Amino acid sequence: MTTVTVLGLGPMGRALATAFAAAGHPTTVWNRTPGRGNDLDATVAGAAAEAIAASPLVIVCVLNYQAVRSVLDPGALKGRTLANLTGGSPQQAREMAAWAGEHGIHYIDGVILNGVIGGPEAALLYSGPEDVYQAHQATLAALGENGTYLGEDPGRANGFNVSLLDLFWTSMFGVVHAFRLAAAEHITPADLGEHAKVMAALLPELIDVVSEHIAADHFPGDASTIVSAAAILDDVIDTIRANGLDDSVLSAGRAAVQRAIDAGHGSAGFSRLAVLS
Amino acid sequence: MTTVTVLGLGPMGRALATAFAAAGHPTTVWNRTPGRGNDLDATVAGAAAEAIAASPLVIVCVLNYQAVRSVLDPGALKGRTLANLTGGSPQQAREMAAWAGEHGIHYIDGVILNGVIGGPEAALLYSGPEDVYQAHQATLAALGENGTYLGEDPGRANGFNVSLLDLFWTSMFGVVHAFRLAAAEHITPADLGEHAKVMAALLPELIDVVSEHIAADHFPGDASTIVSAAAILDDVIDTIRANGLDDSVLSAGRAAVQRAIDAGHGSAGFSRLAVLS
Repeated sequence: MTTVTVLGLGPMGRALATAFAAAGHPTTVWNRTPGRGNDLDATVAGAAAEAIAASPLVIVCVLNYQAVRSVLDPGALKGRTLANLTGGSPQQAREMAAWAGEHGIHYIDGVILNGVIGGPEAALLYSGPEDVYQAHQATLAALGENGTYLGEDPGRANGFNVSLLDLFWTSMFGVVHAFRLAAAEHITPADLGEHAKVMAALLPELIDVVSEHIAADHFPGDASTIVSAAAILDDVIDTIRANGLDDSVLSAGRAAVQRAIDAGHGSAGFSRLAVLS
Repeated sequence: MTTVTVLGLGPMGRALATAFAAAGHPTTVWNRTPGRGNDLDATVAGAAAEAIAASPLVIVCVLNYQAVRSVLDPGALKGRTLANLTGGSPQQAREMAAWAGEHGIHYIDGVILNGVIGGPEAALLYSGPEDVYQAHQATLAALGENGTYLGEDPGRANGFNVSLLDLFWTSMFGVVHAFRLAAAEHITPADLGEHAKVMAALLPELIDVVSEHIAADHFPGDASTIVSAAAILDDVIDTIRANGLDDSVLSAGRAAVQRAIDAGHGSAGFSRLAVLS
C-alpha cells in the first residue's frame, strides 16, 4: 500500500487521514498547531518537511491557499505529488500549479464538494495533468468512490467549486434569514423547518429546469415570469423591513430582477437571469 | 357536492379550478382578461359578481393583494366565504381579513407552498377563524391531502409564506448565479447541474441542523465556523469579480458575516446568523 501524508488536521484533514488509514495506507499527518493527530491511526510528524518526506503523495487541506503556501516546503516536495484539496478559486489553483511546476512538484488540484469523505456519497473533483492523476487514482479512491477527473486545466476543479459554493452559500443565507424572519413572525424553528425542507426539496428539479433553459437558450415564462417574481419579492422584502430586519441579500437580488425587467425580460422565466451579467 | 368559484385563471388559478372540478365540485371561474377558462371543466362567468354569486365558497388566486382588492365585489361576497390563496405578507392578510369582516364576508387566508395542486405532494397552509376553515375543509381537501390549519391569526399562513419564500428566492438567486459563474468558467449547464443537485440536496439536513441549533440556543462551530465561511466567501466573490459579474447578492451576505465576526461570533457556527438581525 502507498504511504500517504496529510498536511492540515482541521475537520476535513482529519477525515482524509482517517479514510486513508482505514483503507490500509500507512499515513503520516502534520498540523501547524501540534498535538492534533495523536488520536488518529497515523504517524504524527514533528515538522511539515518530515511529514512530506514520508510519502510520494502529499495531501494538503487547510483553510485557504494562503495557508497552503505557508505550510509547504518546496524543497521537500520536489519529485513528489501534491494533491491540494483546499478550496479556492480557479486562479489560485492555476497559480499554485505554476509554482509547483517551477519547483519540480507534480500537482493535482481537488475539491471536496459536500464535506463527505469515504463511501458512495463522497463527491470529489480533480483537475491537473492526467498522468499525475492516474498515478494516484487508486490511492485517492480511499476518499470516495465517486472521484471525478475534470481535465488538464488545474483551475477546473475550483471552477466547479466556486460555482457550487456560490449556490450553496447563497442558499444558506436564505436558510438562516428564513429562520430569523420566521422568529419575528412568532413561528418556531421546528414549524418553519418542517416546511422549509419542502421548499428546499424543490431545488434539484428547478436546477434541471434552469439547466435545460440555458442549454436551449429559451426561457419560457409560462409557469412564472420575472415580473411575477418581482411582485413576490416585494411582499417578502416589505415583511423583512416591517420586522426591522436586514433585507440586503434579497434586496440585492431584487435589484438584479429590476435590471432584467428594465432590459425587457420581464415576461421571460426567472431562469433568464442565469444568462445576464 | 359544494359549488366552488375560482377568481383568477393564471397558472395557479387554472390548477385550482381543475382540481375542484376533478373532485366533482361544480366549478365557476372568472378571469379579468376574458376567454381564459373555456378549456376548463367549469362554467365561465362573464363578471366577477356573477361568478361570486354562483358559490358559497369563493377562491381567489391572483398576482398579489392589490389585484385581489381590484377583482372583489364586497356586496356580492357578503355572507359567503372568501379563501384567498394569493401569496402576500402577514400584514396584507390581516388587513384583508379586517376588510372582509367589515363587509360581512367570512375570510380564510391560505398559501400554496410549492406550486403543486392536488395529491399527496401539495402543501397548502391556512389561517383564520377555525369554524370558517372547518366548514370548508372537506371542499378544500380537493386541492391537496396535506392542508395544514395554522390558527386564528389570518396573517399566520402568510408569515410562513414570506419566511419560506425568503429561503426559496434567495436560493434561486444562488442557482441562477451559479450557472452564470460556471458559464464564465467554461463549465456547461449540464456539468454544473449534475453537481449542483448534490449541493442542493445538502439543504434539508442543514435546515434541521440550523433548527436544532436555534431551539437549543447553541451554535457549535465544530464542523465549520463563521470565520471559515468568510474565507470561502472571499474566494467565491473574488472569482465572481474576476469574471466581471455582479457580486451584490453574495457580497451582501458577506457583509452580514463580517458584522457577526465584528460582534465576536467568528468562532460560532454559521447557524448563529439565524438569531442576529
